[in-house]
Amino acid sequence: MTEPAAPTAAVLLIGNEILSGRTQDANLNHIARQLAVLGIRLKETRIVTDEEAAIVEALNALRARYTYVFTTGGIGPTHDDITSECVSKAFGRKHVIHPEAYRILAAYYAESGREFNAARLRMAHTPEGADLLENKLSRAPGFKIENVYVMAGIPAVMRAMFEAAVPSLRTGPAVRSRAIATYLPEGEIAKGLGELQGRFESLEIGSYPFVRDGKIGTTLVLRGTDGAALERAADELTALIRSLGAEPVEEGG
Amino acid sequence: MTEPAAPTAAVLLIGNEILSGRTQDANLNHIARQLAVLGIRLKETRIVTDEEAAIVEALNALRARYTYVFTTGGIGPTHDDITSECVSKAFGRKHVIHPEAYRILAAYYAESGREFNAARLRMAHTPEGADLLENKLSRAPGFKIENVYVMAGIPAVMRAMFEAAVPSLRTGPAVRSRAIATYLPEGEIAKGLGELQGRFESLEIGSYPFVRDGKIGTTLVLRGTDGAALERAADELTALIRSLGAEPVEEGG
Repeated sequence: MTEPAAPTAAVLLIGNEILSGRTQDANLNHIARQLAVLGIRLKETRIVTDEEAAIVEALNALRARYTYVFTTGGIGPTHDDITSECVSKAFGRKHVIHPEAYRILAAYYAESGREFNAARLRMAHTPEGADLLENKLSRAPGFKIENVYVMAGIPAVMRAMFEAAVPSLRTGPAVRSRAIATYLPEGEIAKGLGELQGRFESLEIGSYPFVRDGKIGTTLVLRGTDGAALERAADELTALIRSLGAEPVEEGG
Repeated sequence: MTEPAAPTAAVLLIGNEILSGRTQDANLNHIARQLAVLGIRLKETRIVTDEEAAIVEALNALRARYTYVFTTGGIGPTHDDITSECVSKAFGRKHVIHPEAYRILAAYYAESGREFNAARLRMAHTPEGADLLENKLSRAPGFKIENVYVMAGIPAVMRAMFEAAVPSLRTGPAVRSRAIATYLPEGEIAKGLGELQGRFESLEIGSYPFVRDGKIGTTLVLRGTDGAALERAADELTALIRSLGAEPVEEGG
């Protein structure tokens, strides 16, 4: 049900802290929402540990399959920040000092009176031939190499880098959505909903049960790039809900 | 740095709603924390769309590589709930009515006065030979087949099913952790921290920068199964922080 021409994407979250349960990822949802607005279909996400083999393998699998790959995490100055080296290895490129990244960092540490030491010099390295992604917040840049965008793990910094990435992305038709909730259990609406999906193959129709105030309900989400089909399907869904004796409540997309 | 004997795991989150940005996953963090307590090392997570090829491929990749795979989502009664069929395909098994699941659901719908219709009958199907995972909350069970645990996407239901899964899991030595925060930028402590990691190869040492009250700091997390090594490393880290003129603050593991 994907628009054939729409670009696709994967996200690769790198870091033991998510898999250990210590922190809850805060980046995927932001990237997912931004990509939806840009009409880029996020098809897959992987979360891997800070281990070279795992990062290289996941990156190579994803970059071969999707239009874009966005990675977050592992580009700081400490020993566990190995993303940048791993990206170089995945691409079979030399891992080198990027002159512009060096200049940015040297100026930053000179200004702030901190030492531009060996650990910090690691942040000036990229795969040979990478383009930088500006970091308006804390300077140390991310980078882009071919179809892979390498961003920080700190959410505010990741967002700044994603913003810097946007102009280089090929966009697709925007994905629009309608969400309609009703106090019907999924099992009551499943048959009509499946038939509706059959009539609107260009749309993606999802069903998400909930319990509110002790009552069982379902949120139905219609998504697609064909606005007219979306409206027609929403009208039919509304009629279906009413035919089952319930009330539809628009939730916004 | 993994304990060789410790069991490993992957999580496979299935559902368009996470990748579309509509919802933030709430299951991974719970599973990750539970696995850490059980001494099972969560090595990878994938999030895929509700598409057969994507689910089957991810599941087969993960189940071959890790001791356990936990899936969430896609086992309800609607057309977009295809996880169960996909698991059958991945294992090359027939997708059949599980007699005990049928009995549970028939009793539930009889009690509640709702129709046990064709959509709901889908929830009584599992791959042939699966064992059920009890759902104390809303009855429709999850299931286990070989090393794969198939659970619901609704967080409360997923938790009930995970609890039902625990007795069948081989546990490993519990992973313990210490987290020590300090107002030092990562770049100041990186060198000493890398040396500390070199001296404690059995531990995993992570560094996570933060900004609090406008001050830059770093949380250092030490993780491992060797409690004595953990304490020694934490003592050395504390000394390292003090040698850099800062104060260590224990954050709890």
